[in-house]
Amino acid sequence: MLTKPQQHLFDDATRVVAGDSRWQGRTSPDYFAFVGPFGGCTAATILRALIEHPQRAGDPLALTVNYCAPIAEGEFDLDVRLVKANRSSQHWSVELSQGGGDVVTLATAVFAERRPSWSHQSAKMPETKPFETIPPYTKVAVPWAKQYDFRFIEGEPNFAGSKQVPTSAHSKLWIGDRAPRKIDMLSLVSMSDAFFARVFHARRELVPFGTVTLTTYFHLSSEDLATEDITRVLACADAKVFNRSYQDQTGELWSPSGKLIATTTQMGYFRA
Amino acid sequence: MLTKPQQHLFDDATRVVAGDSRWQGRTSPDYFAFVGPFGGCTAATILRALIEHPQRAGDPLALTVNYCAPIAEGEFDLDVRLVKANRSSQHWSVELSQGGGDVVTLATAVFAERRPSWSHQSAKMPETKPFETIPPYTKVAVPWAKQYDFRFIEGEPNFAGSKQVPTSAHSKLWIGDRAPRKIDMLSLVSMSDAFFARVFHARRELVPFGTVTLTTYFHLSSEDLATEDITRVLACADAKVFNRSYQDQTGELWSPSGKLIATTTQMGYFRA
Repeated sequence: MLTKPQQHLFDDATRVVAGDSRWQGRTSPDYFAFVGPFGGCTAATILRALIEHPQRAGDPLALTVNYCAPIAEGEFDLDVRLVKANRSSQHWSVELSQGGGDVVTLATAVFAERRPSWSHQSAKMPETKPFETIPPYTKVAVPWAKQYDFRFIEGEPNFAGSKQVPTSAHSKLWIGDRAPRKIDMLSLVSMSDAFFARVFHARRELVPFGTVTLTTYFHLSSEDLATEDITRVLACADAKVFNRSYQDQTGELWSPSGKLIATTTQMGYFRA
Repeated sequence: MLTKPQQHLFDDATRVVAGDSRWQGRTSPDYFAFVGPFGGCTAATILRALIEHPQRAGDPLALTVNYCAPIAEGEFDLDVRLVKANRSSQHWSVELSQGGGDVVTLATAVFAERRPSWSHQSAKMPETKPFETIPPYTKVAVPWAKQYDFRFIEGEPNFAGSKQVPTSAHSKLWIGDRAPRKIDMLSLVSMSDAFFARVFHARRELVPFGTVTLTTYFHLSSEDLATEDITRVLACADAKVFNRSYQDQTGELWSPSGKLIATTTQMGYFRA
């Protein structure tokens, strides 16, 4: 008897049902955070709707997701709109809402034909340690974080408090799906938001926090990314400034082969 | 006889006429680039419409502008929409079009009450030299660039070509308006896009280039920024990767007092 291969939880969590301009998705308890779904999963769901859209041409180049209000557990609608199409690029907007209510997530995306060109990676891959030699970080209580395998090289979270705050906001770690899954554009988006809040690191304590806006840039074509054939990335994150209830975060996602495959930046709200 | 004080060219170039949801603006020859208006000026015009909007509450926190197609010389419409308002933040979208045609620029913005909080600037201001000791960079042919006073500390453009490309994509410079103007949120947005394309630096030559998407984060409240009372910023820019016809760019804008007042990131198209 043939059994259907079990789908990865991440693919289940980011599943969308195609519509004309209105698509559907639903939150997954596996990827829940404290007051709603994990923002990375929401962003990946939005990107999936665009990638699967029949009018989509080219590869994801840039995605910005603005988290306007918490998403409630359950179904949601995605209003997907091709705002402008050019010869080699497309501009999209997506509005996520529930039950005909207010927009709770607002996103824009750029897709582009990634034509061959002069190429140069000026950023150097940070020094690392083999994934296998680092124990996984398991001190996580929130559902979404249990879906990832975090292996910290630098900046392992320590929420024991410290008399010497602020401590460094920098982290360097391997991130993969707990059940290994080949890295694609969807995982890059989700992992862009999978860093713990920088304020937790700088203050060595958990404080109320939420991502407000997330932007991710993709530096490989989908084909080149598939050729990497990897199940984890070297992820680096840092913050430059915490001020008046908001922090920034910058991040890089590296292929083990040394290619910078995505960069990300976000602003998040904190209470401290 | 009293004479009306002459308005700064930048304020004239970013002027908007209020509507209900539809606002108007027009391109300025003073801030033109090669195939359309300077993207920084367009972004500032969009931000001005939001700041002047009667429903606006709080300070700019984040702005993303997607340049979908060139803007033609002349008038344009801004469809301004408050997508979601919360107790202490607002989410906006703006669509710029001309003559009832396609959207040519698509933007989202987040505004927020910048409530006092724990504060920490982990980024350190780069070393600099006094503005007055550096000659202005004047080798610019394009109108918009003539409106700025660029004083390079590192990475002065050199388009003479080089046998040793790639050269560094890093630049550090003072930027002010040529006719001094107090730095506000509008100038920060415009200056975010006022760096020369990183590919020009890395290849030491001018190649076809256009900003595709620009994101700027604001780290001070409007009031704190006004208190700085400055007419120029220390601006740093770099690129991490040039691949398949696109480059990234990261940038920081510093107050002379040492405060990081804005950070910016963009993806741009190049042909090389």
